[in-house]
Amino acid sequence: MSWQLTPSIVGDLARGAAVLGTGGGGDPYIGALLARQALAVHGPVTVVGLDELPDDALVLTVAMMGAPTVMVEKLPSLDEVVAPVHALGASLGRPVTHIACAEAGGVNSTIPIAAAAALGLPLLDADGMGRAFPELQMVLPTLYGITASPLAFADEKGNTAVLSTIDNTWTERIARVACVEMGCSVMLAGFAMSGASAREALVPASLSACLSIGRGIVEAREAKTDPVAAVVAALGGREVFEGKVVDVERGTTAGFARGNARIEGRGDTVTLSFQNEHLIARTTTGILVTTPDLIIVLDAETAEPITTEGLRYGQRVRVIAAPSDERWHSAEALAMVGPGYFGYDLPSHRFDGTIENSETAA
Amino acid sequence: MSWQLTPSIVGDLARGAAVLGTGGGGDPYIGALLARQALAVHGPVTVVGLDELPDDALVLTVAMMGAPTVMVEKLPSLDEVVAPVHALGASLGRPVTHIACAEAGGVNSTIPIAAAAALGLPLLDADGMGRAFPELQMVLPTLYGITASPLAFADEKGNTAVLSTIDNTWTERIARVACVEMGCSVMLAGFAMSGASAREALVPASLSACLSIGRGIVEAREAKTDPVAAVVAALGGREVFEGKVVDVERGTTAGFARGNARIEGRGDTVTLSFQNEHLIARTTTGILVTTPDLIIVLDAETAEPITTEGLRYGQRVRVIAAPSDERWHSAEALAMVGPGYFGYDLPSHRFDGTIENSETAA
Repeated sequence: MSWQLTPSIVGDLARGAAVLGTGGGGDPYIGALLARQALAVHGPVTVVGLDELPDDALVLTVAMMGAPTVMVEKLPSLDEVVAPVHALGASLGRPVTHIACAEAGGVNSTIPIAAAAALGLPLLDADGMGRAFPELQMVLPTLYGITASPLAFADEKGNTAVLSTIDNTWTERIARVACVEMGCSVMLAGFAMSGASAREALVPASLSACLSIGRGIVEAREAKTDPVAAVVAALGGREVFEGKVVDVERGTTAGFARGNARIEGRGDTVTLSFQNEHLIARTTTGILVTTPDLIIVLDAETAEPITTEGLRYGQRVRVIAAPSDERWHSAEALAMVGPGYFGYDLPSHRFDGTIENSETAA
Repeated sequence: MSWQLTPSIVGDLARGAAVLGTGGGGDPYIGALLARQALAVHGPVTVVGLDELPDDALVLTVAMMGAPTVMVEKLPSLDEVVAPVHALGASLGRPVTHIACAEAGGVNSTIPIAAAAALGLPLLDADGMGRAFPELQMVLPTLYGITASPLAFADEKGNTAVLSTIDNTWTERIARVACVEMGCSVMLAGFAMSGASAREALVPASLSACLSIGRGIVEAREAKTDPVAAVVAALGGREVFEGKVVDVERGTTAGFARGNARIEGRGDTVTLSFQNEHLIARTTTGILVTTPDLIIVLDAETAEPITTEGLRYGQRVRVIAAPSDERWHSAEALAMVGPGYFGYDLPSHRFDGTIENSETAA
């Protein structure tokens, strides 16, 4: 079922996307500004479900790459958002028919709205992860053999590049160093795929889910019920900790916002380790949950999602663990996005506490 | 006047090119191997003088980018040499008619021979510098407003990229970081220009000059006369020092071979500072010569050119200073390739000892 995306719902959608963004994917306020501006200038965007997508559609994902810390200070223009799509156009030789989100996140769910509006194209009600991950190859389409390249990227100065690489990890490596040199944030277009492939490889109905989560938070606030509980229910997750942020150690290295945050609560302290997104949540005695399941930090009262670059001393927060798309739990997927990939010598811990090793992987 | 480039003359040409390469531009032995192999497989290359070039020709320069130290260990294949030309082809929309050298150097004068042979295209008797310089934008075409981009590059693994940048310095910046990530050496094609522009912006007859210098060295050896004197005469330069290499300090940083070499001779020590190419030659009491004029290190007996990565303790060498193309002495050119650009707070010292400041710049 298709629906119209108008400026009035962008705020809720961006807020819900920031929840699924697990700390990364960019600031929802910035993301909403960009999308609202584009919708105001170019009119509403039609959002199309995967079930309505023709097999022979040509789908491109559009995203911002870089350190979220930098994205906040270097807002892209609409010209920059559409530049990589145009740059890729020539390589593909036939017209792009649909835009999709690579991930769920405050900016990376809204940049594609801006792109779709400016290009006059429909947007898919879907994304490549069902959450956010820090590296470009970390999308379900990679697991389906869909190539990131030809991949185009552009900066705000007017520089563009089109990569053609031997695998998606090389796309990430080359785009990342270029991104750092170009100022630590660039706009991307890539992962060209047919409608049939998109239906198989993307996470369905995820824009609808973002909107529903974001609306649920506002409705709970208005009803004076607990908005954090509304998020937990919507995600089928569980609340794992509540406390006060007492320490945030953060650096922008190799184009990523990396660091650790400590949260003190009743009788224990939780440490969150992140690379753009939260990857590991541990108490003083053990692991609570790890990537690929979702680690979400919400304001304790309002359930406003807090990005990793938004973490500040003194914030009262609640930490939620929630299941990822089940496809992230295959052995192949865990090799790509599990704790080991990020340098943590740990098995994956699911949101419900289940420890996953190669035998138990889905 | 056009002439045929056959395998038998490649060695002399590469040796002469390494002389003009001023320590950079790659190892002439490696360069000669590549060109000979391509000529053996694809037949001789026609070398065309700038005076014979049609105004509407489409000229591309082909070069290797990277640290010469790495080039020695990672020989490109012919596939890699032509890959960037093919990648660029689509962007340009009309057929390339001539290949040119971006610089003079043991590898960068011979890679274009291999490319021309494999592509079945004529090669220009010309290059973009009349010497070698370490960065991509440092070619005379930049001074004539010719853009490096669209610029394509490729690695030996099969990754390619096409850049479109706002100026040639940005082409260098983005290509350099990608080059480092891709293994510290890539093949490039760029600086697309018309025949009319090439005639204006390139250094004429420089392949002929390389061949003549290389042959002159061999002839002097055979005639038992001094081959170093033959090089000095050919270049209109002067010998500034003779001694033994007593110290070489060298690192590969940011994709360049950077360092210093100390040479002890009668009554004094000369220090050479290099970034791929020799940039500054100084005694204990003053400056002998600086970029953009040529600083050339030759074996004291055989006049075999010694690249910066080939410098070793104990080598007996003679150091030659020689004039660069006069266009490198304009104020604009000195800002691009003078000592100040490389971080040396010095005026340019010409090969004959003349000190050049903004008032005396050509």
